[in-house]
Amino acid sequence: MSKVIKGNAVIGQSGGPTAVINQSLVGAIEMLKKSKAVTKVLGARHGVRGIIEENFIDLKKVDKKKLEAIAQTPAAALGSSRDKPDEAYCKKIVKIFQKHNVRYFFYIGGNDSADAARIVNELANESGYELHTFHIPKTIDNDLRVTDHCPGYGSAAKFVASAFAGDDRDNAALPGIKINVVMGRHAGWLTAASTLARQDKKDGPHLVYMPEVPFSLTKFAKDVKDVYKKLGRCQIAVSEGISDSKHRPIAQVLAEKLGKEVERDSHGNVQLSGSGALGDFLADYIKEKLGKGKNKLRVRADTFGYLQRSFAGYASKIDQEEARECGRKAVEYAMAGDVDGSVAMKRNKGAKAKYGVEFFRAELKDVARFTKDMPRNFINKAGNDVTLSYIKYAKPLIDELPVVGKF
Amino acid sequence: MSKVIKGNAVIGQSGGPTAVINQSLVGAIEMLKKSKAVTKVLGARHGVRGIIEENFIDLKKVDKKKLEAIAQTPAAALGSSRDKPDEAYCKKIVKIFQKHNVRYFFYIGGNDSADAARIVNELANESGYELHTFHIPKTIDNDLRVTDHCPGYGSAAKFVASAFAGDDRDNAALPGIKINVVMGRHAGWLTAASTLARQDKKDGPHLVYMPEVPFSLTKFAKDVKDVYKKLGRCQIAVSEGISDSKHRPIAQVLAEKLGKEVERDSHGNVQLSGSGALGDFLADYIKEKLGKGKNKLRVRADTFGYLQRSFAGYASKIDQEEARECGRKAVEYAMAGDVDGSVAMKRNKGAKAKYGVEFFRAELKDVARFTKDMPRNFINKAGNDVTLSYIKYAKPLIDELPVVGKF
Repeated sequence: MSKVIKGNAVIGQSGGPTAVINQSLVGAIEMLKKSKAVTKVLGARHGVRGIIEENFIDLKKVDKKKLEAIAQTPAAALGSSRDKPDEAYCKKIVKIFQKHNVRYFFYIGGNDSADAARIVNELANESGYELHTFHIPKTIDNDLRVTDHCPGYGSAAKFVASAFAGDDRDNAALPGIKINVVMGRHAGWLTAASTLARQDKKDGPHLVYMPEVPFSLTKFAKDVKDVYKKLGRCQIAVSEGISDSKHRPIAQVLAEKLGKEVERDSHGNVQLSGSGALGDFLADYIKEKLGKGKNKLRVRADTFGYLQRSFAGYASKIDQEEARECGRKAVEYAMAGDVDGSVAMKRNKGAKAKYGVEFFRAELKDVARFTKDMPRNFINKAGNDVTLSYIKYAKPLIDELPVVGKF
Repeated sequence: MSKVIKGNAVIGQSGGPTAVINQSLVGAIEMLKKSKAVTKVLGARHGVRGIIEENFIDLKKVDKKKLEAIAQTPAAALGSSRDKPDEAYCKKIVKIFQKHNVRYFFYIGGNDSADAARIVNELANESGYELHTFHIPKTIDNDLRVTDHCPGYGSAAKFVASAFAGDDRDNAALPGIKINVVMGRHAGWLTAASTLARQDKKDGPHLVYMPEVPFSLTKFAKDVKDVYKKLGRCQIAVSEGISDSKHRPIAQVLAEKLGKEVERDSHGNVQLSGSGALGDFLADYIKEKLGKGKNKLRVRADTFGYLQRSFAGYASKIDQEEARECGRKAVEYAMAGDVDGSVAMKRNKGAKAKYGVEFFRAELKDVARFTKDMPRNFINKAGNDVTLSYIKYAKPLIDELPVVGKF
């Protein structure tokens, strides 16, 4: 397709917030404002739902100053959505696009959003309607395929690494066992980031549990005991998604073991969304296993929660820049004749290469639906820490880590 | 006492960490290094316990670069302690001081630490041993008497305000009811700080509950319903210390109401330290009260936990500077002939005065033991928000709030 079709553009944002999702939005708006092929730039409020409901705002009318402030702000400024559109839903979207002469569709989100974009695009193609669809990646989970890493991950990783660095000093000042539960239902990328501010072997986290490795309670208690014996304290990073070898969530396993109530939804499924359940249960388990006769064994748990994805004012600059560029590239690719795709990043190769990325177009189908776990070589053999390979991979994604000094 | 006595100095840190507790430590070390009256500057590891155990480090040997890094680092670098020394314990301290010719004692902490310092000082005086004791204030709770505000509060307030600002955008992007539990067992100062990044009336937190006002569940449900009806969402700040009119912690009241288990310690007292209990219970309560027939009502709770006191890399610059100066002033006062005291701050007066503080010496007895709640005029009549007076008081304590833009 060498001739660029004229028409309107729609941008939407989807899924859970990140600190830089609006950088991508603003990057795309910048480029769309310049484009001669695009008349109206419509922002869909709350993702696909905004399209269905024709709830659009005219993004060309938003001034530069406001856009810059929005770019700095965490969480989807257009509003997000948890709707997972099926084919009927997507058909409606195509109809609305036809009605409004929308020829360019940009959807910022994770793998589910890439899939929605893919379906919309295919349905448009099938009906002979020319539509250029681009997915713009974002997720704190860093679990999208093809791309080296995901916009949103660097900022969340910076938050988690800084949180652990400060909490580790807290734990050193008032020694005990501290468990911090980090987001990540299926992949351990964000939990792994807890290690990025460590300076030496005494620094926490001393144990890191990611969902890629089946979690054993017996092994856990032994690991904690060993560290505590050696250091007199232990800081632990745990992914919210840890499961046992039978794929049962550990919160559920522990609830049964400890004789605690578990929340169940109307279908009888165990609810794991309680803000502190997993952390509290793990703390109780450790108290029971190691605290006998030691009344003063301090065991505490925190669940970092939404702050990891939405904390304001502490994004990684590199992440901000890359996210912005992903938005720009999506428009550039869409105008260059490529019908559809997703923006991906490739890292400069070579052992001595300075960190930097090259952007490229990926196929929607290669990014949609499935996700990417941590590779096994990023996790140590014992399954309770990351490796140096992971540290080398992740550290450049964060602009700056806090200064930490100690006697 | 006009003649300055020669001898050694001991510094200790106590209680829960803050982001700037080491600024005060380094401020005191700086001045002590310069003092001709002081020979050794001893850092007590883990507060009073380090004194009893004669576990000291020679602080004169620590180089400037390391000290500067330590100043930037959250949580007591010397280690902290939860020991509450009784008279026998304090007598031991005086003996150790006599043994090591310690004539200057600096103790960085909250009201309990001020009390320990007071007792040690009185016991030394009674036994005719000349000792200059200074308490250096620190607490994220901002609940010390005499001083306008406490070092440590500004940084924790900045963290909480930024967390709410980002989480509010998260809540606007994916609307629902969001409850955030903030530290503060007896005073609502830190919970109040959740409001400091609000730009207009639609911004969260929409409801703020502080322990100074008895908490009513019925009123709470009505408040939330009203906000939700108006805005389609509701972000709520709740102090961990909220209690009903009979002074019963709300976590306990709700556990009974909802038929949940509560953790009890060996004395049968309800444990409230579970990381998510209060937030989860409040979320369940709201789901039960408002969620009937609305399967999609999103109700979530986060408990911010230790991050509020220990997050690294995000301190308030003003707070850092004031904390450093408190450390310096303590030494200055101690060398000027004043026998003992606590460092306090007074704010520049006058409606048009630029923010700034003057330091002065307070009496130990006036800072020790009792704490300071939020004054009633800082809380609105309905007891579910702060007032403009509070905002005016607190905003200058934070150097900078994150940029927040929206459509």
